[in-house]
Amino acid sequence: VEPFELRIQSPGRILFGAGVSGRLATVVGELGGRKALLLTDQGLSRTGLPQGLCVGVAAAGIPCELYDQLAGEPDEATVDRASERFRAGRFDFVIGVGGGSALDTAKAVAALGTGGSVLAETYGKNTITREVGLVLVPTTAGTGSEATPNALFIDAHRTKQAVISPHLLPDVAVLDPSLTLNLPPRITAATGMDALAHCVESWLSVNGNALSEAYAYEGVRLVAGSLETAVANGANLEARGNMLLGSLLGGLALTIAGTTAVHALSYPLGKRGVPHGVANGLLLPRVLEFNRPASEERLAALAPAFGLPVADRAALGEAVVRRIQELLVRLPVSKTLGEVGVEAREIPAMAAESLLNERLLRNNPRSLSQEEAEGIYRRCL
Amino acid sequence: VEPFELRIQSPGRILFGAGVSGRLATVVGELGGRKALLLTDQGLSRTGLPQGLCVGVAAAGIPCELYDQLAGEPDEATVDRASERFRAGRFDFVIGVGGGSALDTAKAVAALGTGGSVLAETYGKNTITREVGLVLVPTTAGTGSEATPNALFIDAHRTKQAVISPHLLPDVAVLDPSLTLNLPPRITAATGMDALAHCVESWLSVNGNALSEAYAYEGVRLVAGSLETAVANGANLEARGNMLLGSLLGGLALTIAGTTAVHALSYPLGKRGVPHGVANGLLLPRVLEFNRPASEERLAALAPAFGLPVADRAALGEAVVRRIQELLVRLPVSKTLGEVGVEAREIPAMAAESLLNERLLRNNPRSLSQEEAEGIYRRCL
Repeated sequence: VEPFELRIQSPGRILFGAGVSGRLATVVGELGGRKALLLTDQGLSRTGLPQGLCVGVAAAGIPCELYDQLAGEPDEATVDRASERFRAGRFDFVIGVGGGSALDTAKAVAALGTGGSVLAETYGKNTITREVGLVLVPTTAGTGSEATPNALFIDAHRTKQAVISPHLLPDVAVLDPSLTLNLPPRITAATGMDALAHCVESWLSVNGNALSEAYAYEGVRLVAGSLETAVANGANLEARGNMLLGSLLGGLALTIAGTTAVHALSYPLGKRGVPHGVANGLLLPRVLEFNRPASEERLAALAPAFGLPVADRAALGEAVVRRIQELLVRLPVSKTLGEVGVEAREIPAMAAESLLNERLLRNNPRSLSQEEAEGIYRRCL
Repeated sequence: VEPFELRIQSPGRILFGAGVSGRLATVVGELGGRKALLLTDQGLSRTGLPQGLCVGVAAAGIPCELYDQLAGEPDEATVDRASERFRAGRFDFVIGVGGGSALDTAKAVAALGTGGSVLAETYGKNTITREVGLVLVPTTAGTGSEATPNALFIDAHRTKQAVISPHLLPDVAVLDPSLTLNLPPRITAATGMDALAHCVESWLSVNGNALSEAYAYEGVRLVAGSLETAVANGANLEARGNMLLGSLLGGLALTIAGTTAVHALSYPLGKRGVPHGVANGLLLPRVLEFNRPASEERLAALAPAFGLPVADRAALGEAVVRRIQELLVRLPVSKTLGEVGVEAREIPAMAAESLLNERLLRNNPRSLSQEEAEGIYRRCL
């Protein structure tokens, strides 16, 4: 084994618990925030949830303005517009509230800060710092974006671009399961499958270590144990809490180990309008099936995390894949490319696009050719 | 569930791998060290290992002096003498090399730094800061001291005292399994049982959370999977590496969750000269047996980490305790109080002393009376 560095990168603080979002004003104040811009997406804005949080901050004497002009996966124009608003309004603090897209946008706006840069200048690793305070409040469980140094955007060529820097980790992550109680079953299911993908992919990544394994295993245990309950009974606070913690652990795990071919094959679907969680959920069992010959033992070791009996060791890898397939079948998410409106003739182009994600494919336990990528997509038809 | 904070406290950096101690000079230089005092104990000093590390640092142009006047659990006089040497020699950097006692002493000497304080003034929580650079190199696996904000000392009344502060976490932890290849089987076994106790106790602690569970579970997996191999074949580098990682994870886990009655009952044995790991190993299965009625389900959930088949769920908690008993029987460690020279008439006094450790007993899943503490000791006779 080559020597390696066990890096523990994480938010400065992580607050967890029902009602903990009520401490948002205190948190902003402690970090020296004097005028906060709260970024969220239009969908969430219609529920009134972000307004409530903003009012709470303002009531504590810290002016807070809502900016809800975000929708779908963030592109450059969206981020640059939000960043302009931040500068024009002389804000000094960013609060991100929402799913991965809103949180990623908030991370970028905080990093762009009061300087003159635009998003397109920041792609890559360690290109940015951050002077502006940043608190993230996830309302899905989910991307785990609140616990990663990554933010992903669609560039002018409709290609996924990553900004990666420890400065993108928030000063505080606020995980309040009560904010997720009204998340509809379909979104709970799709974002939950995304969290599961983060954990399982990190577990299988060839760039994992003892720390990412610790996060990934516990993340699988929490998500596999609570996802179906959270979907069936959205008001179950314990299941919602476990999902938020599982999503957080997925973020911590992938920060170390990285995701794999599931995410690489998922990006071309995102480009064609398929929600991120739906795409990952749909691909997860198929990619695992493809990876099995190269990761049978690692996959088998995940069986207890899925609550599978460990008695028959021979068939365990298969049992894990079957369990994930069952989840996909039982959850209210799309199960085929047809259901998400992607046609068979798109497959060669998508396969070629997926192979461009070398950063992710380097983590995958089995190397992937154009033909094999096409084969996986075809099994999703 | 009450809201809580998920704190990720850890060393600034953690380097892992065979040969990684060869980077010690680089690490000290990067941290701005100009004159380093390397603290270690007499036993390790006789092997020549710390001298080799010191020479390596000096060869890179950073003067390094060896201070090896440490032996057994550190008391106030020992720490204050080392601290005096640090000041008198105008050092600006501390390197700790050894087991938990040496690392705890190094942590205290670095925190006392160039100021005028003595150890006795620093007991308690958040009483100290640290200006002096600190690198810790564990040579046992072990206490996990390199990953905790705690340091433990024997005060003038022969009572265990704790200094707890995030400033006691080192700037860098250097985990080099090749440094542990020559550790004798008895010390490998005893320190390994200590690491196992940290992981299992953290898992059962009523103050655990998803993060400490992640660390604890993976720590059990690594230690349970490699301890017997490391004892039987000390030169097995992979097993030694797994043990160091398991010990580190135990430290990270107990930093969050705390240890329990095993450690509370162990301190009185330490006072009577029983090595820390030996005492914990001997107590671990007996305390688990006592705790079982209050932690059956949690204990059962650890079964896969011990490699136990999960088919028969009913008997799993018992199976975990039995597996730990087997380990104790098979490893070259003391199995009874008689073997470590503690007599039955000491038991009432030891039970009373153990109950003073409220900080630890608050974490225990079952509350403990004088009679029950005596009962556990008696089962160790």
